Amino acid sequence: MNAGTNIGTIHGVGLGPGAADLLSVRADRLVRTAHHVAYFRKAGRPGQARRIVEGMLRADVIEFPMEYPVTTEIPVSDPRYNACLSAFYTHCSERLAAISQQGEDVVVLCEGDPFFYGSFMHLHARLSGRIPVEVVPGITGMSGAWTATDLPITWGDDVMTVVMATLPEAELARRIRETDALVVMKIGRNLPKLRRAVAAAGRMDAAWLVEHAAMPGQRVTMLAEAEAVTPYFSILLIHGQGRRP
Amino acid sequence: MNAGTNIGTIHGVGLGPGAADLLSVRADRLVRTAHHVAYFRKAGRPGQARRIVEGMLRADVIEFPMEYPVTTEIPVSDPRYNACLSAFYTHCSERLAAISQQGEDVVVLCEGDPFFYGSFMHLHARLSGRIPVEVVPGITGMSGAWTATDLPITWGDDVMTVVMATLPEAELARRIRETDALVVMKIGRNLPKLRRAVAAAGRMDAAWLVEHAAMPGQRVTMLAEAEAVTPYFSILLIHGQGRRP
Ligand SMILES: C[S@@+](CC[C@H](N)C(=O)[O-])C[C@H]1O[C@@H](n2cnc3c(N)ncnc32)[C@H](O)[C@@H]1O
Ligand SMILES: C[S@@+](CC[C@H](N)C(=O)[O-])C[C@H]1O[C@@H](n2cnc3c(N)ncnc32)[C@H](O)[C@@H]1O
Repeated sequence: MNAGTNIGTIHGVGLGPGAADLLSVRADRLVRTAHHVAYFRKAGRPGQARRIVEGMLRADVIEFPMEYPVTTEIPVSDPRYNACLSAFYTHCSERLAAISQQGEDVVVLCEGDPFFYGSFMHLHARLSGRIPVEVVPGITGMSGAWTATDLPITWGDDVMTVVMATLPEAELARRIRETDALVVMKIGRNLPKLRRAVAAAGRMDAAWLVEHAAMPGQRVTMLAEAEAVTPYFSILLIHGQGRRP
Repeated sequence: MNAGTNIGTIHGVGLGPGAADLLSVRADRLVRTAHHVAYFRKAGRPGQARRIVEGMLRADVIEFPMEYPVTTEIPVSDPRYNACLSAFYTHCSERLAAISQQGEDVVVLCEGDPFFYGSFMHLHARLSGRIPVEVVPGITGMSGAWTATDLPITWGDDVMTVVMATLPEAELARRIRETDALVVMKIGRNLPKLRRAVAAAGRMDAAWLVEHAAMPGQRVTMLAEAEAVTPYFSILLIHGQGRRP
């Protein structure tokens, strides 16, 4: 609560890749003392952000699970997909704004770092300027992933490229060819396409797949040995090989 | 100490971008309980990693400052530069291995994330396989930087490219042209070259400079308004503008 103004702050709090002790000290304090917490999840699922903080919340915490509207039957390219998500984010933002206007803070639980391909950004864009919003950066999923391989991702002057596996195959192959170090996120059903792109770029031997980095069930394999579909929480890595004294 | 084997573990611990409460809970515990800490610094300087943990160390801590050999008079392209640094990293690794062989753990303090363009990697490469080495990921300097701008770095399917300002001007300009979101590190004296590359790519209006992210004296300016040289801890950002419902 902001003394005097009686308007609460919305905190977008990065939780890191998955392990409870990889929250920052600042995030840990905010989560443990929060009276209101909000988090995204798929309908009927516990939600990864909520799972990370299991056992850390106040006994009298008020939870606001923000359940994504079911969108799997609408293709991402259909304008109704965006319209549906947009209405959802606006609705969630209004709920958070209402809590803030009652003088209460809200901690929004975010996987990894909130400003790095996160959903919180859609709330931030709608609330910032109207309501006090503060962001706590977090350890990204990709840092969790390269730490799991026990190898540095970049050396010297390596160029690192981060791409989503949702891009077209030819663009993926081109990006892989033109970079030293590579991070690919949002893989899931795009794995067969990604595998073809990595093969076309001639980097199959260098590509690692990390599933559930820093979470229970963490698994590191070479892409060549991976199954047909990866879980939502999976990242492909190609380590840079730059100058190393 | 590893019970039974009597060999200590070398912990490469990511400290995050600069604020003491942006250490992870795991890092915070390791730092506060460490009997031996090691950290890189320039000769005669306190060192940024050491500054971050000021006030957190045990009263009886044993410190091992690893002072970079003075290299400014040798150009990076000269083979003696690499040879000099290589000997230095080998020397530091042997010192750490000796402490470990006495059954003592060592916490190596690392700015940001150890496996992301960090110096710890050069120790890791020399020790891993011989001595138990464990890495704790950290919040990167770039996460601190985009959080300081209060704007998300990437949306939807944006491609993000990370480059060092030490690259040739033409390559910088090409990389800037071909990406959605951009992060440039190691700027310092390369700022005039970087500025020309950003201008050549037509992105001057979109380029932000963040100095000392999450540290005392944090400063956010537009590149167009920046001075001629930036401090060692500065990052240039161009935010992606991808799909946002
Ligand atoms: C919507 S993005 C969110 C990224 C998050 N904000 C971050 O900083 O890592 C979701 C994607 O992040 C990646 N991801 C995040 N955390 C991960 C983890 N612990 N293990 C593997 N992949 C992870 C996966 O590729 C997933 O598809
Ligand atoms: C040798 S790299 C180390 C990167 C570090 N391992 C990380 O994860 O951020 C040093 C460069 O990181 C960037 N950097 C790291 N922390 C920073 C901060 N807090 N503010 C601004 N720049 C930072 C600067 O560009 C600097 O030249």
